[in-house]
Amino acid sequence: MRDYSIGIDIGGTKIAGAIVDRQGNIIHKRICETPSESKERVLQVLANLVIEFHQLVEKENIRLVGIGVGSAGQINFNEGIILSGTDNIHGWYHVEVCDYLKQFTTLPIFLDNDVNTFTIAEYQLGSARGIENLVCLTLGTGIGGGVIAEGSMLRGEWGGAAELGHMSVNMYGPSCNCGSRGCLETYASGTGIANRMRERLQNNDSLADWEVALYRKNQRSITSKDVFEWKELGASIATEVAEEALQALAYGMMNMIHTFNPTAIILGGGLIDGNRDLVPAVQKRVSKLGMASLVQPVTIRSSSLGEDTGLIGAALQVWM
Amino acid sequence: MRDYSIGIDIGGTKIAGAIVDRQGNIIHKRICETPSESKERVLQVLANLVIEFHQLVEKENIRLVGIGVGSAGQINFNEGIILSGTDNIHGWYHVEVCDYLKQFTTLPIFLDNDVNTFTIAEYQLGSARGIENLVCLTLGTGIGGGVIAEGSMLRGEWGGAAELGHMSVNMYGPSCNCGSRGCLETYASGTGIANRMRERLQNNDSLADWEVALYRKNQRSITSKDVFEWKELGASIATEVAEEALQALAYGMMNMIHTFNPTAIILGGGLIDGNRDLVPAVQKRVSKLGMASLVQPVTIRSSSLGEDTGLIGAALQVWM
Repeated sequence: MRDYSIGIDIGGTKIAGAIVDRQGNIIHKRICETPSESKERVLQVLANLVIEFHQLVEKENIRLVGIGVGSAGQINFNEGIILSGTDNIHGWYHVEVCDYLKQFTTLPIFLDNDVNTFTIAEYQLGSARGIENLVCLTLGTGIGGGVIAEGSMLRGEWGGAAELGHMSVNMYGPSCNCGSRGCLETYASGTGIANRMRERLQNNDSLADWEVALYRKNQRSITSKDVFEWKELGASIATEVAEEALQALAYGMMNMIHTFNPTAIILGGGLIDGNRDLVPAVQKRVSKLGMASLVQPVTIRSSSLGEDTGLIGAALQVWM
Repeated sequence: MRDYSIGIDIGGTKIAGAIVDRQGNIIHKRICETPSESKERVLQVLANLVIEFHQLVEKENIRLVGIGVGSAGQINFNEGIILSGTDNIHGWYHVEVCDYLKQFTTLPIFLDNDVNTFTIAEYQLGSARGIENLVCLTLGTGIGGGVIAEGSMLRGEWGGAAELGHMSVNMYGPSCNCGSRGCLETYASGTGIANRMRERLQNNDSLADWEVALYRKNQRSITSKDVFEWKELGASIATEVAEEALQALAYGMMNMIHTFNPTAIILGGGLIDGNRDLVPAVQKRVSKLGMASLVQPVTIRSSSLGEDTGLIGAALQVWM
């Protein structure tokens, strides 16, 4: 009998569950809408998934060895509590996920944030297989980090470590919603890039006509994708914003290299999936910065696993 | 029979050796001048210390369990090699300390950098006793870092981790000798503070007469101590430089808190020993920055061990 794990990935719009083996193969998968009205409803969805998967398994005579749950936000890993997560679910803070699910199973249950589960997936099965000193960054709406140090997930005191999107690379930089300034997220996340673009448009009145015409879009709807497209067309402000994002990312990554002495950094998330050219562009910049003994041996790669990375990574916690 | 360890601390001007117990008590101590002319001469001093301590021990019937060596610079911990260290010793790079000393002893030998040995001493016996998630910073000529993550020293791939003095807090900041810009060291080390002061003096010609008189000192001999003293007198440029050093330190420490989720940061080194008021001043700034869930629980303390911390910490490696 092979060992299987139940993986559950809690997102703001959908909750995915699957039965997964150690090689990341999914044999059953369920997708449910995330009920946004209350945390009780969300917990009910999780319980139903656990109950259903247990029933499926009885019929099929396979062995389940644990349950791994992944969620956005800050997680108290030791106690299995979501401290804060998506704003999309009403009252979604201090959610005692592990204690709640224990009512429905005797399996061990693990809860971690979705960047750590992404990191586990990349470490066990993906671009970073077997790399014992590893930094993963997910670049999307925000920026998340996960770190493997000498083969173990870096968690710190309660599981809050590796908030690498909130590493400041400019103490005089733009305000961040974390209460600091110049966090990596303010320059190189989707939201950050769009914000920096809007800011420059508001403070610039000496543009060529063609560039003004290019930017003639509802400013509120500007995305990082727009910025990178405008840069390709040679637009000056978009180029500045994109270059600054790359530079901030390079400085953040150099800081992480000086901090962790890793051999690889894996970049993932929407921004990277939509623009794989970012990886060599940032590699080039990083290689010119910092202490050669630490920086030169580091490989920078994009993530190699597909859309189910979070779900599979959640399940893989059982074997981490 | 109690267990003892041989600790050796290699500095640019002196080499200290001692026989130390697990509680940090020194029963024999030797201080030698560092022979600057060649690495062979330095290795000979180390060998003589090891031989002498072995002879002492025979007579006294105590048990030696290992040897721990500490040195400035970058250390390959896994291979026991000093990659680069003090400029004070001619040819002092790629020094295979552990392999060399194995000729003179059968004891296990450990080699680490002096900030890690400082961290071990503070963790085992000092201000951070028993704190499993801990960051140590030494502020002197440069800035060094040591990290305990879940009870283990963070080393990374070959032992180069925790170069926290080379965490950039301003990607547009002053050039650092590491090849980057705005490293913590460029703002908040002794050298950095003095450099920033000189820079501002050269770029300022609108000072009050009393302030000009105050600064009338050979610019090359300015130290961070001068800057803090001038600040106490209300001098404007010195105040700006000192405030910027504190702010950079606060941002660096916030980055470390976001990265490691520690419960304490220990500050040591010449700058702190000479000005303990820096600790509450920086604590106040850090507490206003970043993610409250991570920042608020962190205690910031000064180191509590005396001048032999490095030597004792070197010896304590044996029990880490």
